[in-house]
Amino acid sequence: MITFYTYPGPNARKAQIMLEESGEAYQAVTVDIKKGEQFDPKFLAISPNNKIPAIVDHTADGPVPVFETAAILTYLAEKSGRLLPAAGAKRYDVLAWLVWGTGSVGGTLPQLHHYSDLPDRVPGTVERFNTEAVRLFKVLERRLQQHEYICGDYSIADIPTFCSTAGWLQRVKGWSDGALGDTPAIDRWLKAVAARPAVQRVG
Amino acid sequence: MITFYTYPGPNARKAQIMLEESGEAYQAVTVDIKKGEQFDPKFLAISPNNKIPAIVDHTADGPVPVFETAAILTYLAEKSGRLLPAAGAKRYDVLAWLVWGTGSVGGTLPQLHHYSDLPDRVPGTVERFNTEAVRLFKVLERRLQQHEYICGDYSIADIPTFCSTAGWLQRVKGWSDGALGDTPAIDRWLKAVAARPAVQRVG
Ligand SMILES: N[C@@H](CCC(=O)N[C@@H](CS)C(=O)NCC(=O)O)C(=O)O
Ligand SMILES: N[C@@H](CCC(=O)N[C@@H](CS)C(=O)NCC(=O)O)C(=O)O
Repeated sequence: MITFYTYPGPNARKAQIMLEESGEAYQAVTVDIKKGEQFDPKFLAISPNNKIPAIVDHTADGPVPVFETAAILTYLAEKSGRLLPAAGAKRYDVLAWLVWGTGSVGGTLPQLHHYSDLPDRVPGTVERFNTEAVRLFKVLERRLQQHEYICGDYSIADIPTFCSTAGWLQRVKGWSDGALGDTPAIDRWLKAVAARPAVQRVG
Repeated sequence: MITFYTYPGPNARKAQIMLEESGEAYQAVTVDIKKGEQFDPKFLAISPNNKIPAIVDHTADGPVPVFETAAILTYLAEKSGRLLPAAGAKRYDVLAWLVWGTGSVGGTLPQLHHYSDLPDRVPGTVERFNTEAVRLFKVLERRLQQHEYICGDYSIADIPTFCSTAGWLQRVKGWSDGALGDTPAIDRWLKAVAARPAVQRVG
């Protein structure tokens, strides 16, 4: 049984989709980050960077705590043998696109979120992060024009980028003044991932 | 033989330290990112996000291209059997701290770099990213007070955070107005990592 530490939002959704994909049994525990529960020493012992998502797998060999979405997805993929090749060039292609999704895409969009939500917008900042978001979505569109899923077959590389793209593509397009045009390959891929039973179960 | 695509800077240094640690033979090829060489279609076929570092390992089974620092370090660790346990809780601890270093630490400091370098600083932005840098260095200090290296033994988790911290700790301290006080554990760890032969060879 896996304990899943969560709070509603895109990062928790990434981990929960992979929990569903992996077929592992899990129980969700809400960490109320609005109330500061992520700073509770008991939670910090599991997630020392004070963030959700995090998991603890209660295995026969003892508890395995994992924080950071990319590490959680890798753990669940290696445990279940699903969505990450065990060796070969494809394995590292998936790992590269996985950390691209959590780090590059997943690092840019929260900045855009922050600056676009400010009542007194800081000049240039929304434009700066939107320009980077446009670049990232162009990288993704180019990739998906050549591959059905990011790394060919559906893999853990799709999950973080799917969650970020589903929430942000239209807003970034709207702000980009045509710089990000049509994205037929991304649109096709978003529909395909959204239709997966595991993704539907998470909602 | 591994081809290492590089350009001077902290990200290239992270990959090169692990190339040295792994004992793999490699040849460096400079991609002049100031001249836009990262957008050359031949390089994009290796590094589709148009960034260095990237590697291509020319193996008997064919070429293995890898981009994103965290994926490069994982590739080299798994190939060489060094600095990443093959299984067990410690493996995922290393992977979590690895992506924390490339994503969270490695995502914050370039923003600080950008905004602190602007001649007409954007109000609030340096403070915002410095506050996050202070938080990250406090997480690191707390961790290193309990562990000799980030995950106990020296591992790939140390390399990215070492490169970022070596370049930024003093500046972040200076700007933090006492919010980041002494960091005896980080200071000890910086010295220990800097003394490693592989790190010395990279310079
Ligand atoms: N790099 C982390 C980011 C996780 C993250 O940003 N979590 C947010 C919620 S979406 C959080 O827990 N924030 C609480 C805090 O920062 O104090 C990952 O990929 O898992
Ligand atoms: N997330 C990437 C970041 C790499 C990166 O930012 N590389 C910079 C140089 S330090 C680059 O190649 N910039 C060229 C560009 O963005 O066009 C990693 O961890 O490898």
